[in-house]
Order: sequence, then C-alpha cells, then structure tokens
Amino acid sequence: MRAETRLTVRYAETDQMGIAHHSNYAVWFEAARTEFMRRAGAPYSEVEKRGVLMPLYGISARFIAPARFEDELSVQTWIKELGRARMTLAYEIYRVKDGALLATGETQQAFTDAALRPVDLKKAAPDLYELLKRCAGEGA
Amino acid sequence: MRAETRLTVRYAETDQMGIAHHSNYAVWFEAARTEFMRRAGAPYSEVEKRGVLMPLYGISARFIAPARFEDELSVQTWIKELGRARMTLAYEIYRVKDGALLATGETQQAFTDAALRPVDLKKAAPDLYELLKRCAGEGA
Amino acid sequence: MRAETRLTVRYAETDQMGIAHHSNYAVWFEAARTEFMRRAGAPYSEVEKRGVLMPLYGISARFIAPARFEDELSVQTWIKELGRARMTLAYEIYRVKDGALLATGETQQAFTDAALRPVDLKKAAPDLYELLKRCAGEGA
Amino acid sequence: MRAETRLTVRYAETDQMGIAHHSNYAVWFEAARTEFMRRAGAPYSEVEKRGVLMPLYGISARFIAPARFEDELSVQTWIKELGRARMTLAYEIYRVKDGALLATGETQQAFTDAALRPVDLKKAAPDLYELLKRCAGEGA
Repeated sequence: MRAETRLTVRYAETDQMGIAHHSNYAVWFEAARTEFMRRAGAPYSEVEKRGVLMPLYGISARFIAPARFEDELSVQTWIKELGRARMTLAYEIYRVKDGALLATGETQQAFTDAALRPVDLKKAAPDLYELLKRCAGEGA
Repeated sequence: MRAETRLTVRYAETDQMGIAHHSNYAVWFEAARTEFMRRAGAPYSEVEKRGVLMPLYGISARFIAPARFEDELSVQTWIKELGRARMTLAYEIYRVKDGALLATGETQQAFTDAALRPVDLKKAAPDLYELLKRCAGEGA
Repeated sequence: MRAETRLTVRYAETDQMGIAHHSNYAVWFEAARTEFMRRAGAPYSEVEKRGVLMPLYGISARFIAPARFEDELSVQTWIKELGRARMTLAYEIYRVKDGALLATGETQQAFTDAALRPVDLKKAAPDLYELLKRCAGEGA
Repeated sequence: MRAETRLTVRYAETDQMGIAHHSNYAVWFEAARTEFMRRAGAPYSEVEKRGVLMPLYGISARFIAPARFEDELSVQTWIKELGRARMTLAYEIYRVKDGALLATGETQQAFTDAALRPVDLKKAAPDLYELLKRCAGEGA
C-alpha cells in the first residue's frame, strides 16, 4: 500500500533563497505518514490514545529540485521494512503540475509506550501489527 | 521585573521576502517569557510538572521594522497585568547592533490545570502566584 | 468575498500541552490569505513577481478552543478594510467535525515594492487594486 | 576546526510526545553551520551577498535520546568533506547538563549562484574556498 497526500507550499515554509526550507520536508513526510496510517485504518491520533508512540530514531532525505511557494506537492509513502520493534518508511515528493520528482527520503521509527520505552508491537498491539504487516505487503 | 533574552535570527526563520517570517515573533515572545519565568525563580518546565499550564487565549504584535538573517535580537518582557485566573505579558524586540525597536506585542494567558480547565492560581499554586505578583511590581 | 481553506493539524504543529501551538495560527491565516488571493484571480506568487509585496505590520488573534492533532480545520478570510497603502484581513477558524469556532484574528498588511518601501497600490498596480476593491465589496 | 553553538529547546519546538520534534534538528544543524561560517571568518549572510548560496541536496540524522523543553544543547559541527562543487558537514548535539549525546547528523550542500546553478567555488570565490579548506584541515 502506498498513500498519497497533497499539500501546497506555504509562504512561511519559504526561506530567503526563495525556496521551501529543507526542514519542512520532515514535516511533509510526517503528513504523508499520518495519511498512510489513516488509510490503513489506524489513525495515528487513535494509536497514540492506545499508548503506542512511533518516535523517529533516524531520517534521511535527498533534495533533487526545489519546491517553491504555491507549488502543489504530492507526497507518497509506503512501508519499506517492518519489524516488531521498528519500522522504516520511504517517501517521494512530486510537483503536481509537471510530475517532477523533487525529493526522496526515509524515516526509521521505533514502537514505544507513552514513556518512550521500546515495545514489541506484535505483543503490545497485535491488531495494529497485523494491519501494518498487510500494508507492508508482507503478510498472511 | 523585566527579563531579556538574546537570540540570533535563524536562516529557517527567513522567508522569500528576505526577512524573518512574522510567525516567529510568537516563538520569540515565548522564549522571552520562558526566560522571565526562569529568572523569576519558577522555570516553566517545573511549573508544568506541578500541573499548572499557561495556554494563550490572545496575542497581538506590531511589526515596526524587519528582522533579518543573523541579526542579533534582544527580546524583553514584563508582566503588564496579573489576575488570579489570567495574566498579560508585554514584549519589545530590539535589534542589538543599533538598538532599533523592531516589534512590540502582548500575550494573554490563562492559568489552567493539565486538562486545560481554568484554575485560580492563588489557590492552586499560592507560592507561584505571590512570586508573579512580586515580579508584576504589585506588592508584598 | 470570503475564501475558505481546509487544512489538517500536523503532528509537528502540536506542542507538549497536546494542542496546536499558537504560532501556527499565523501560518494558517496566511494559508487562507493565499487562497483568498488565488480565488480573487491574483495568486500571491504572481503578485510578488510583479514587484508588489504585502508584509504584515500587525497581527492579532483570539484563541477560543484548542485545535488538536488530525483535526480538520476550515480557515475563512475576508477583507475588512482596504486602503491604497494598506489592507486589513479578518479570519475565523472552525473545527470541521462539529463547526466549533476555535479562533479569530486580523492581519494588517502594507503594500510595498520589493525593497519593502511603501507604495500606493492604486498607482503601482491599478488592476490589482480594483480587484481587491471588488472583493472587499466596496465598489463598482 | 569545530564550531559550537548553544541553544535552549523552545516550547514551540516540543510536540505532543513531550519531546523536541525531529524537524527542529535540521534547524539546529543550520544554526551550528551559521556559527561555523561566522567563526571561519565568512558569515553566511555576507557569503550570500556575494552571490554564493549553499542549498542542501542531502541530510541525514540519527536520534539517540530526546531533547526536552528548556534543555540546553551544544550543537557542534565540522567539515567532513570539501570539494569545489559541494561540501559535507557533520554534526553532534549534546545535552549540556550531563554531556549526553542526543543526535548526530550530516548535511550535503552544493555551491551555487543566486539562481541555484552549480558553481565551482574555487573559481567563483577563491578566498572563500581557501578559507573552508583551512577549516577542513586539508592543507595550505
């Protein structure tokens, strides 16, 4: 499963080079990830209420061409690797008007409890684990 | 009492007009407010641990001259009005190199518990109330 | 004319009170303003290319109820006052799921050239001035 | 040469997990990079005025332990690799009170002109290239 989010570059996201500041890509990846969880049937706000958090322990991004104010972007995401304690998601950001690939990235996330202690997702929330497994295309 | 915070305009805070984006002033006011509480003897991170929050219910700012990348700023703050349920702080932001006043502002904040329900600070945390009262220059 | 923008509260926009940080409202107002200009027929990215900027010289907001992660918001904006040198816009932010009014605000903006010097919009860009005037409902 | 910047985690930088949101690390790396350039004798705001920009084409970070509101951080940076068209900087972020390493990272940056076209820094700004070369510890 691959989820897509559309967003429009905000003025506040530009910098004095006249392009979207690179720190926003992490926020855009997150918006895509949130949409992914929603479409998977496990909105992240509900997952958190059950006491499961997914803090990042790693991120990387490659910036291919700049995004500019008012550009409409398509941010796509999918699960690259799913373990019982952690998950890697991959991302691609496209400019809608011409389909140009602007950036790619990955995030590494841990499954933890509300105190940020690692949990085994398969034990802590088996239904959520199964659901992610199906999304990852790895599953039963 | 008046507290001062120094900060340097970050590249990420600029926008494509080549100036610091106006949304950052709210963040800078907050940095000054945090320093104010620390100097008052009640660091905000400790106040929160006691279950007292101070969410904003109002903000206003006047932008007189733009702040630019790498400008060093002096952000000053003081209590303008203190009640048992709410507090108004005032702010001035100066550019350090020439003393120019760049912006002024105010925030209105409520005292609440962790669930964001209003509290009477004098009852909920009398020592904190007395301390703020002294800072507000309203007397013994 | 009143323009509406829909947006979903991002995780990065939350703070440790568990609500959207107040500095984001300035960004959301801006997103609504950007949509307003687009619908008015003068996308702000094109206005800027013609050398007209609209920096803020004032902002105010009233926070009535908190916005939370994944809340869908409707941000509405309209011109409250239009002059030849400046303009005031007003905003309302609603939570879509129950129609609750979360915040109101205003921004005061100047018309300037690319060097941030004031301009008389009626002289500098008469078509844009007329267009805004029609949106403001002030005239033939 | 290694440059150090001190900064204090801002409330606006926290998220509802109660930790600094990961997107801020890119901003903190940048603050350290800005200090690095200043200490190297080439403040970035002056470099830009000469028409040399340094947009990122890559970033990566590893988050080891969370940073929290009011934590004082020491952000350290140095040049890991310097070419004529690009440069890699490395970063470490420490919590000041106990010296704990919270995060590490790298940014890859291109040298470009104001239109974001690649330049050969040795030709475009030989003095700047030499200065960075000395900072990189690569010789005469």
